[in-house]
Amino acid sequence: MIDQTVTLGENVKIGEYVVLEENVMIGNNVEIGNHVIIKEGTIISDDVTIQDHAILGKPLTKFKHLARKPKKEVDVLLIGERAVIGSHAVLYRGSKLMDDVFVGDMASIRENVIVGEKSIIGRNAMVENNTTIGKGVTIQTSSYVTADMVIEDNVFIGPSFSSSNDKYMGMGNVELKGPTLKKGAKIGNNASLLPGITIGVKAVVGAGAVVTKDVTDGKTVVGNPAQVLEKK
Amino acid sequence: MIDQTVTLGENVKIGEYVVLEENVMIGNNVEIGNHVIIKEGTIISDDVTIQDHAILGKPLTKFKHLARKPKKEVDVLLIGERAVIGSHAVLYRGSKLMDDVFVGDMASIRENVIVGEKSIIGRNAMVENNTTIGKGVTIQTSSYVTADMVIEDNVFIGPSFSSSNDKYMGMGNVELKGPTLKKGAKIGNNASLLPGITIGVKAVVGAGAVVTKDVTDGKTVVGNPAQVLEKK
Amino acid sequence: MIDQTVTLGENVKIGEYVVLEENVMIGNNVEIGNHVIIKEGTIISDDVTIQDHAILGKPLTKFKHLARKPKKEVDVLLIGERAVIGSHAVLYRGSKLMDDVFVGDMASIRENVIVGEKSIIGRNAMVENNTTIGKGVTIQTSSYVTADMVIEDNVFIGPSFSSSNDKYMGMGNVELKGPTLKKGAKIGNNASLLPGITIGVKAVVGAGAVVTKDVTDGKTVVGNPAQVLEKK
Repeated sequence: MIDQTVTLGENVKIGEYVVLEENVMIGNNVEIGNHVIIKEGTIISDDVTIQDHAILGKPLTKFKHLARKPKKEVDVLLIGERAVIGSHAVLYRGSKLMDDVFVGDMASIRENVIVGEKSIIGRNAMVENNTTIGKGVTIQTSSYVTADMVIEDNVFIGPSFSSSNDKYMGMGNVELKGPTLKKGAKIGNNASLLPGITIGVKAVVGAGAVVTKDVTDGKTVVGNPAQVLEKK
Repeated sequence: MIDQTVTLGENVKIGEYVVLEENVMIGNNVEIGNHVIIKEGTIISDDVTIQDHAILGKPLTKFKHLARKPKKEVDVLLIGERAVIGSHAVLYRGSKLMDDVFVGDMASIRENVIVGEKSIIGRNAMVENNTTIGKGVTIQTSSYVTADMVIEDNVFIGPSFSSSNDKYMGMGNVELKGPTLKKGAKIGNNASLLPGITIGVKAVVGAGAVVTKDVTDGKTVVGNPAQVLEKK
Repeated sequence: MIDQTVTLGENVKIGEYVVLEENVMIGNNVEIGNHVIIKEGTIISDDVTIQDHAILGKPLTKFKHLARKPKKEVDVLLIGERAVIGSHAVLYRGSKLMDDVFVGDMASIRENVIVGEKSIIGRNAMVENNTTIGKGVTIQTSSYVTADMVIEDNVFIGPSFSSSNDKYMGMGNVELKGPTLKKGAKIGNNASLLPGITIGVKAVVGAGAVVTKDVTDGKTVVGNPAQVLEKK
């Protein structure tokens, strides 16, 4: 079902059983797979690939028992040029993916997220709302990126990474603050970061480390709780 | 494809490419997204929202090499009033979601699970069979809830949580027993619980902790293996 | 949409809104759910079950900023007899699933993977490219199996397992090498394995352990970093 208000560029390929809602705008040379759903107002730039079963521009769900209300007004979803959106991915309304972004199969990105140029969001990775991701960032498979995180340029995050933003675990009425990862930081697989901490420029967090406090620029931490690894 | 035996309430909205099988019953004011599949016999109460690509009432798969057979006879899937079921979610036949339950995108709940009122199952969270979840429980994104768990009221489970129910890891012929989380317990992100342990009332498990034995009511444990954190 | 070049065996059941591309070959007694997509050239043997929303035979995505190029030429996807492929699963072109393999809902397997007879890939588990999985292997829910792993016969991997293959975390131009799990090894839930290590025959890795070096045959390791557990 393609709504009559949809704008289609030149040379757009559209698969079977696709739903394109009102005011969707699609650039030139875009490929849309089968069973794709693109919600109202979404903007897709030139040369984008959207794979089978993906859902783009999902609006926030109204549910009165959810803890958080959106901080800012939510705009449409914008997908930059040459981006690839994987199969079964779910991208919310109100986020902005810059040019050359890659989103893996079954990944999901909530509202008010910015993903910088040439960044990669791995398969099955979940990115929460209000998080800012720089350029050239890699977030590997099945990682969990909490809300309100700042991930600077060229950060590398291994698979099965976990983060949190709520020091008091659901007590409510406290400020939520995700970790900050400074430029070029590297995080090993299955590491856990606690709320509000900062991982410094080019710092390294070992696989499986549980990081409870800030890590200075250039330092390497390992263990549970994570400790600075002294050079031998 | 809507089977002719389906019962539809008043003011039901149905998306594109939906499959409703035999004897599905749908209450008033229900919204069903695109590409949704609702299997035979499923009962959907009033004011429920079912988002795009969700699968409800999935029957158990016949596969002779799977270790476990279902303990009890499997009934239909029942969804309580005002529940929200996220995009790409998969809910099995034989479970019961009470009123005001929220199930995130890509989450899955196996058979014979009960989810109490106002509980939240986060995005990409996996809940195994025969687990009982109380009221007001939060299970965050990408958490893994093993089979045969008991999660009491108002428990909070952070993201990327992991649990297991098989002490002997696939040796077979042993009783499988998931952990028990007592009222108001809080579990940090990426914590691991071993089979059969109990986390006491209002006890706290720190992020990344590996809990190998019972935790007394009100105590906080951290580390690998988890140890009680003494107050300073 | 069923392409006219598709070969269908006897007694094949096909659901609603299915897409079967060119030269797909389907054996006898195969069941194909609703909204299933089977890509060009895929071969499905007799008595296979493919559940709703699954995607089979997905080709590699062309994206110039991805780090790795495929090592070998990629062939079609081959599914052995009596295999079950879960709902929302995504299987890539160029892999080979032997007879009696079970793939859970929302699981994904990349290209050039071999899965041996009677092995089980759990729900939401992610298996990367070029990995070899033996016979009778169990990989539980939400586990992450990195690229270039060797998993021998009868290995058991608990839920939320994590592994990595890149010692230098995205520095590029280094050989990537996943862990090797020897026959009958058992890995507890949420354990992390570092690149290139070997877990010996019938060795056991405890839940939540972070394994940084090889484990000798028959030994048990626990902790972060994992240490051999001496028998008391």
